[in-house]
Amino acid sequence: VIRIALDAMGGDNAPHVEVEGTALALRELPPTFRIQLVGRTADVETALKRHPGIDRARLDIVEAPDVIGMGEKPLAAIRGKPRSSIAVALGMQKKGASDAFISAGNTGAVMAGATLILRLHTGVRRAAIGAVFPTAGHSVLVIDGGANVDCDARELVNFAHLGSVYARDVLERRDPGVGLLNVGEEEEKGSAVVQQAHQLLKAVAGLRYLGSVEGRDILTGQCRAGRVDVVVCDGFIGNAILKFYESAGRMFAGMLTQAFPDVLGRPEATELLKFLDYSEYGGAPLLGIQGVTIICHGASPARAIMNAVRVAGQMVRSRLNQDIGAEFAGGGAVA
Amino acid sequence: VIRIALDAMGGDNAPHVEVEGTALALRELPPTFRIQLVGRTADVETALKRHPGIDRARLDIVEAPDVIGMGEKPLAAIRGKPRSSIAVALGMQKKGASDAFISAGNTGAVMAGATLILRLHTGVRRAAIGAVFPTAGHSVLVIDGGANVDCDARELVNFAHLGSVYARDVLERRDPGVGLLNVGEEEEKGSAVVQQAHQLLKAVAGLRYLGSVEGRDILTGQCRAGRVDVVVCDGFIGNAILKFYESAGRMFAGMLTQAFPDVLGRPEATELLKFLDYSEYGGAPLLGIQGVTIICHGASPARAIMNAVRVAGQMVRSRLNQDIGAEFAGGGAVA
Repeated sequence: VIRIALDAMGGDNAPHVEVEGTALALRELPPTFRIQLVGRTADVETALKRHPGIDRARLDIVEAPDVIGMGEKPLAAIRGKPRSSIAVALGMQKKGASDAFISAGNTGAVMAGATLILRLHTGVRRAAIGAVFPTAGHSVLVIDGGANVDCDARELVNFAHLGSVYARDVLERRDPGVGLLNVGEEEEKGSAVVQQAHQLLKAVAGLRYLGSVEGRDILTGQCRAGRVDVVVCDGFIGNAILKFYESAGRMFAGMLTQAFPDVLGRPEATELLKFLDYSEYGGAPLLGIQGVTIICHGASPARAIMNAVRVAGQMVRSRLNQDIGAEFAGGGAVA
Repeated sequence: VIRIALDAMGGDNAPHVEVEGTALALRELPPTFRIQLVGRTADVETALKRHPGIDRARLDIVEAPDVIGMGEKPLAAIRGKPRSSIAVALGMQKKGASDAFISAGNTGAVMAGATLILRLHTGVRRAAIGAVFPTAGHSVLVIDGGANVDCDARELVNFAHLGSVYARDVLERRDPGVGLLNVGEEEEKGSAVVQQAHQLLKAVAGLRYLGSVEGRDILTGQCRAGRVDVVVCDGFIGNAILKFYESAGRMFAGMLTQAFPDVLGRPEATELLKFLDYSEYGGAPLLGIQGVTIICHGASPARAIMNAVRVAGQMVRSRLNQDIGAEFAGGGAVA
């Protein structure tokens, strides 16, 4: 059984979307999943009234009376509200009563909470967000997707290791190719930090480091040195490109809809519009902490919550957390 | 008459594409344009044989025996090859014999040459590339598009002014909105440099500064504070997002072609595929130097060269160069 704690109070439409996502997950995912809805019991029960057919035998409701708002300062909120849904759910995972945590709430608070309560793996300097970019071919993991805006070279090397283990365990890539985002492929290109990271990555063991990749290589999943599975960058750039990509998908969907209204009924159109809609995707893992945490968009619909539950299950089953610990334990991954 | 010097030896298919672009420009653009093809006369004449109908009366061939290769070190190449097409063409502009320069050659060499030969405007710390992003609505200028990988806050403020004048003069925006690319709209968000730039930009006169914008606001051209015409970022991010966008266009074009082969003959499809093809666009201005310079993709087709000639004409006619000088001359634009 995989026990997934879901922040019932996170997200723009909590707890309704979370409860609906739970209903979907319990219906569509294998019976090994058990969902722990963490939040205000009364609110959760009210939301559950809309889903009379839900499988209550695989559902726990865990009381957490406090809510951390989207605008609250992360660290102060986590410290000041130990009975918040975020703190309670992470505490359950810490003491072994839960296997994974999913929240569409305050991203900063989830990061701060995970780092404070679950702690980082030894050798990891900062947790990073892994953003899986859907493409026409294989998906590509961009790390950091927004957790750290100013990164030094050693942190970028950390991200390369975290991304590589995630690509192996969850994206099921045998020998993941890791590229460093840069403005060109030549040795002398790039910012000071990126040049330094490049030198460190060339010397590191246990990674298939491809060298520099460019912005165009993310969606092709290819660079001169081969197939790209992971792209390493600081969280400022990762966040900007991720949000840019979401908006590009919306823009193209709008253009398609406007230019060819007559094809929209076809299954190919449904498929393509689904691909272009970022809200279909299931959140982003927070990597480097001892545990499993997934951060979802505040505006996630129920289907995205369900997809996050599915991904959390893959993370647990593949023993990603243990594998990350092992990657850093030898010291080889510590730049 | 507007005299446009075109690097006949730049680009992956020089001089053929440059000559073909010249033929297109002389045929399709107003008769006020005069093209100066700068390069090896013999090679240019050979390429011209394919265009017997070209208007030789509006075409000059200027001999430049040396060629700067794509892989050469910019500064060493410019200094070591004063008779290269890039150096000769920029020298013509410097002494008033030409109004603008376009090259699809070695980008670094064009930047180094423009900075050394034409010089920066007083008060401008570094030249920046302006990348015009096509969108479903109004285009948005991203600056810096790749000239400077490590930027400090004062340089970002420079870019804001350069972009604002360009948006006014060439994109014809009455009162351009300028946003600073960031990971969120809140005051405390962003890297140290971006936070510092934000404080400087808030205090600056003569700019309609909108505050922070996010990756998603580039293509919508909108943020909470209003309409976005210019997005300021360092050249590392600008380059990454620009290349990412080009590849996204290619990917979407491929998906469209594959999903709906039967609609491809329609004018709407031609229009959309043209929009998605970055090579249709006409290069990027190098802003901050005393003069007019446009940098094109190495792989630019003839149509892109023609579009660059058109944009160069707009830059000259709008007196962009003089307006940038005036913007910085008062000292108000100098952070």
